Amino acid sequence: MEIRKITSAQNEYIKMLAKLSSKKHRDEEGLFLAEGEHLAQMAVMSDYCVENLLMTEEYYSNNNDKFSCNITIVPRSIIEKISDTKTPQEIVAVVKTEQEETDLTDGKYIYCDNLQDPGNVGTIIRTADAFSFDGVILSEGCADVYSPKVIRSTQGSIFNIKIIRNRNIEFLKKVKNDFMITSTALYGKSMELKKMTVKKNHIFVVGNEGSGVSKEILDICDEIAYIPMSGKAESLNVSVAASIVMYEVKNRE
Amino acid sequence: MEIRKITSAQNEYIKMLAKLSSKKHRDEEGLFLAEGEHLAQMAVMSDYCVENLLMTEEYYSNNNDKFSCNITIVPRSIIEKISDTKTPQEIVAVVKTEQEETDLTDGKYIYCDNLQDPGNVGTIIRTADAFSFDGVILSEGCADVYSPKVIRSTQGSIFNIKIIRNRNIEFLKKVKNDFMITSTALYGKSMELKKMTVKKNHIFVVGNEGSGVSKEILDICDEIAYIPMSGKAESLNVSVAASIVMYEVKNRE
Repeated sequence: MEIRKITSAQNEYIKMLAKLSSKKHRDEEGLFLAEGEHLAQMAVMSDYCVENLLMTEEYYSNNNDKFSCNITIVPRSIIEKISDTKTPQEIVAVVKTEQEETDLTDGKYIYCDNLQDPGNVGTIIRTADAFSFDGVILSEGCADVYSPKVIRSTQGSIFNIKIIRNRNIEFLKKVKNDFMITSTALYGKSMELKKMTVKKNHIFVVGNEGSGVSKEILDICDEIAYIPMSGKAESLNVSVAASIVMYEVKNRE
Repeated sequence: MEIRKITSAQNEYIKMLAKLSSKKHRDEEGLFLAEGEHLAQMAVMSDYCVENLLMTEEYYSNNNDKFSCNITIVPRSIIEKISDTKTPQEIVAVVKTEQEETDLTDGKYIYCDNLQDPGNVGTIIRTADAFSFDGVILSEGCADVYSPKVIRSTQGSIFNIKIIRNRNIEFLKKVKNDFMITSTALYGKSMELKKMTVKKNHIFVVGNEGSGVSKEILDICDEIAYIPMSGKAESLNVSVAASIVMYEVKNRE
């Protein structure tokens, strides 16, 4: 554990952190930021490796017995510089992106097929955690799970649940023998959600905000389920649909 | 039906429209914007009064038989000026904010107590429409339903469903004789969602993102229900919670 002070925004480490707002730099550095006390504390208590905690002098003087990580004391202006929010908080955790998981363990997973909206990805992770799913699988092309907006939308659940990134149809084909795969879709040869089968090892697929689950996944899945709607709206928000699926699965246990 | 052309961004009408990004001006003018073909078409087909359709010359020449409203042809730069999105579309509807509804008709309603996030308000309106609820009631202090972000999140459902704005605890006290009132809350003397009563005339209350349903509403409601969670997440996103409540209500019919 090391405590240091940085006062210049031109410091190379600070300049590097400021660049973590872009996915390219997060991937290159293998780091992301968890902003604010709640997220920083969750990061510290999680299996993720917290490289550093940036905090203001004031925050440090009130909380210096709370953390046993490397601490960097910085002026508020530096936190503002690296922060994604308009009203930045007094502490930011610099966290190492988790190692890629290669194998699925037994259990229930949500597979997000090409979700574009960071808020949707984050909200699905939050609900999957709340309903004790075993993990969230993100396809190639999904919003980056380490983006500030996703992290915020998870409300910290990113630190509670397994996230498996950059997967595709080949991955689903490979695990198909061991996992039942159910897609949600609006139409087609689908069944009401209430009637879907729920297995111990099960992957539930939700699809892109505009185009839904891709045809190639629909072709290989075991069941297709829809959520009955009676109003004029053409569809549900995908994080709502995913959450209703998880609620329904949870109710079967 | 009138067709005119405006080319100057300094035109007084255009300057007024550009100000509709702020709630103050939307309230003063009694107008809001529905951006893009999908929303503009839904506005035209709805009970709302579309004062004007702004469109580019190109859009007009391809679609001039589609609309029987007042049309203003403008350069793309003007649409960019009044638009909330980074990639503005070719058509924007200028819509009159609906008259305040004073009485509730029979049916099922979601009451949003002080929701701050426009995406949550919009998503709840979208789900309420999908599950054919009779309306969405917004308390004083909720994100403005006519803000561009709410309108976008509703995906057009704002034009399908009754919205009742600026209500408060007095409103709930007044309708309490005719409507059952159920709040969702995390803890307390609450029952599992599955066990809640569902009546023909029923208001379901969801609460602020941080603090939940206010105590004064919890005190007057007939039942308090919670969604069982088993994971580490402390709570669900409020639009997810509201959607699960509506799904559950729908399932009882």
